[in-house]
Order: sequence, then C-alpha cells, then structure tokens
Amino acid sequence: MGKKVAIVLSGCGVYDGSEIHESSAVLVHLSREGAQVRSTLALKTKVYLGYISFCPGLLFTISSTGWIILGRIGAGEFYAPDIEQMHVVDHVKGQPTQEKRNVLVESARIARGNIKDLATLNVKELDALIIPGGFGVAKNLSTWATQGKNCTVSKVVEDTLKSFHAAKKPIGMCCISPVLAAKIFPGCELTVGQDKECEKWPYAKTAEAMKELGCKHVNKHVDEIHVDVKNKLVTTSAFMCNAPVHEVYDGIGKMIKEVLKLA
Amino acid sequence: MGKKVAIVLSGCGVYDGSEIHESSAVLVHLSREGAQVRSTLALKTKVYLGYISFCPGLLFTISSTGWIILGRIGAGEFYAPDIEQMHVVDHVKGQPTQEKRNVLVESARIARGNIKDLATLNVKELDALIIPGGFGVAKNLSTWATQGKNCTVSKVVEDTLKSFHAAKKPIGMCCISPVLAAKIFPGCELTVGQDKECEKWPYAKTAEAMKELGCKHVNKHVDEIHVDVKNKLVTTSAFMCNAPVHEVYDGIGKMIKEVLKLA
Repeated sequence: MGKKVAIVLSGCGVYDGSEIHESSAVLVHLSREGAQVRSTLALKTKVYLGYISFCPGLLFTISSTGWIILGRIGAGEFYAPDIEQMHVVDHVKGQPTQEKRNVLVESARIARGNIKDLATLNVKELDALIIPGGFGVAKNLSTWATQGKNCTVSKVVEDTLKSFHAAKKPIGMCCISPVLAAKIFPGCELTVGQDKECEKWPYAKTAEAMKELGCKHVNKHVDEIHVDVKNKLVTTSAFMCNAPVHEVYDGIGKMIKEVLKLA
Repeated sequence: MGKKVAIVLSGCGVYDGSEIHESSAVLVHLSREGAQVRSTLALKTKVYLGYISFCPGLLFTISSTGWIILGRIGAGEFYAPDIEQMHVVDHVKGQPTQEKRNVLVESARIARGNIKDLATLNVKELDALIIPGGFGVAKNLSTWATQGKNCTVSKVVEDTLKSFHAAKKPIGMCCISPVLAAKIFPGCELTVGQDKECEKWPYAKTAEAMKELGCKHVNKHVDEIHVDVKNKLVTTSAFMCNAPVHEVYDGIGKMIKEVLKLA
C-alpha cells in the first residue's frame, strides 16, 4: 500500500518561502515511489470494487461521491500554516517589499491548489513527514532567520514534529529545515552539509550552530544523506550547497527513499 | 561545450503563471545534461587559465571581476517579460484576487533571482529556447485563455520565437505552450497530448484547436515527445495529462534531451 506522506511548506520562493526546486524534487520522488505501489493497489481495487478504465492508463475506484482518481496514492499531501509571511521578498532585487502574503495561499502555488491548513494535520492518518528548505523555514516556521540558535519554532510546527516523533514515524528534512529538528529534538544527529565555509558551502556556520545546540552534525556531500536511526530523522543538505540543481534533486531522492523505507 | 538555453517563464504558479513542476523539471534536466559537459570544460579551463579549487568539487575560472563559479554552464538562463500579470489567482480558492503582480518579478521565484527581462534576450548568444506550460502562457504571454485560437501572442514572445526559428535553433515546449507555436508557425507539427477528452486528458479540445489553426497534431502519451524536424520544434504534453508528476518529469526529460541534440 502506498505511504501517505505530509509535505509541510512555508510559502513559495527561496527568499521568503519554500525552495521551489527542493519542493518539486520531493514531490517527483514521492510520486515515483508511489507509482510503483499504485498498480498493486489498482489490482486489489479491481477485484474488490469493480475496476473500470475509461481511458488507457487511468485508474478509477468508486466512492460515495462518484469517480475518484487513484493517481495521487503514494504521493504527498501538502500542508502549510495559515499565517501571514514574515515578509515578501522581491526575488529580482533580493529586497523586501511592502506587500502582505499568506503562507498557506502562496504554498498552494507549489501544491497546485491541493493543500490543507497545517493545524488540521492528523498524524494518525499519515506515515511520514517531509519539510523542504528555503528561507520560509527560517522566517515563517521559526524565527531562525533573525535569532539563529536562540530562535523559537512556531507552535503548530513544533506540535507536528513532536507528534510524528512520538509515533515513531520518520521525518525527512533538507537544506535549512534540519534546524527545526535541532531545536525540538536536542541531541539528534543531522546534516546541513559541511562545517567549513567556502564558496561551495556558504552557510557552513549553520553546522556549528547545530553543534552548539547539542546535536551531532555529520558532514555530508550534497548527494548524500544522514540517517539518525534512533530518531527516524533523515537529512540532506540540498541548496545549503552551491551545487547544480540536479545534484540537489538526487540528494533529495535519497532522502525520500530512506524516509519511505523507515515508514 | 555546454549549450546555452533560454527558459522563458510567465509567472510562478499553475493558475496565473508558469507551472512550477514543469519549470523545475526543465531546470533539473538541463542541469544534468550540462553537468556532463562541465568537467570537460573545467579541464580546459585548468590548462588555459590556471584552475584552482578551494573546496573539493567546486570549479572556478578567472574573469576580470574575480572568481566565477562554473556551476551554471550548460544549464538554463531564465527570461520573462517585464509586464503586469493578467490577474493574480488565489491557488487555494482557484479564484482571482484584487492583487497586482509583475510577471518578471514572480518568475524570479522559480529562477532563484537569476532572471532577465525577455526584451533583452539576444538569440546570437543562445543555442535553444524552452517555454514551460502553466496558465501564464495563455494569460501573460498570449490571450489564449480568453480568445482560444483567435488569440494574439505578445510581441516580445512572438519576436523571440521567430528569432530562434529563423536562426534554425531548436525550441522546446510543453503543456499549453505549443499553442504559441501553432499561432506563430502555421503548419507546424506538435503535440498537446491526446485529442479525445476524458478524465486523463481534460484539455483534449486544445488538440482540435491546433488542427483548426492548420497544424498537424500528433497524439502522444505523457512520457512521449513529438519532434517537428523541419521546424526544430520539440513538444510534450506534461500537465495537459492528468498524470502523476514523475511521468510529467520524465516526458520533459525527453524533450530536453532532444532539444539539446538538435542544438
């Protein structure tokens, strides 16, 4: 059966929301894993409910409301907090504007409209949690952008993380989002890439902050992940590394595979 | 040597701009193709300019302004028109709002800030052109959304398409963006997927409109492309098909490979 995975977004755009290419990579990899499962489920559905295909390749099942497409099984369910963004950044100028935008509404651009308020998330209905990176994590899900390791994590995000952790369900995080785990699960093991700053690793000081928070930071390359088996926490550096986007994509692929294995 | 490819965006979000996952797939596939070329170029750079790596895996070359990262070679260059969007759609409600947004500024979210005004595009400096889909193509690059086959294509987009065509440089289009080619290059061959409407192909009437415009529409599945060799036009249906996102990603991958082969 396809795993049901919650993806928590923080807006739409690297400088004030979720990093778009990380979020898309998460979705593509989840979809691919889910697709392997879908045909099995469709077969079961065929036997049990009477499977009908109107159009080659599309699978239907019957629900009380009519025909429901099975295409989303195994892929992700998007969530975001229904709050105002810390600010809106003009991504051409790299500077804040006077606009106001809502995190849930902007995240819906990545989710193609298929998104729910994070406050409604029910961990019992889900198998795993993924939080992509982007400055939105440090601005809208926590105060990391302004307060670093002394930041607070927003209550709904903290509650979500703790509920998956308590249920021993895996959590996947990339780029800057592991800082949330560092705050909520002191002593956990994670990676945000490398701890020596250079052009390739411009945010390496984040690794030092992880250590100061009492975590074990493990140096990893962009195409690698770190797995904290005890905490079921899977992390990869993604755009913490100044790397070509396909390497970020591949690292996230490894994260997704491992999260689904642990689920 | 890595190919220089222009990616023309039309905003950020499926309902009023560029489709985010199609745009990301274009970038990931271009990056992967470019990466295969990069190491060769780096080797040449090493011999010619004195290659230095401060950090394992990162490649530098010397320019008049200092150290320049070679990571972008072979990947895409983003462009978008500096115009107001037709409208802004709340992607949760699926309804227009009263906001005003600029196509170039919103497209910069997908481009991570690295984007240029489409009016400045110089075809002589580029090897190929890619236009991802999303309603922005039908709303901001043309009037297809309101006028269908009687639409007009915005002048800067028309000029761009004609300049690549005249220079015999390949053009890749997916989802709804082939309608631009249908208007500008009458008689061309293309695909927008299938011409029989069903749940899997909700926009199949677009294929009929292509035929009415005098084009040859070729039915293709989401993981297939059509190549118009004479016009160097490569098309794939992407989210014209109600398909899992990884199938859209794979179809776009084939489009990118073919475009680079023709370049």
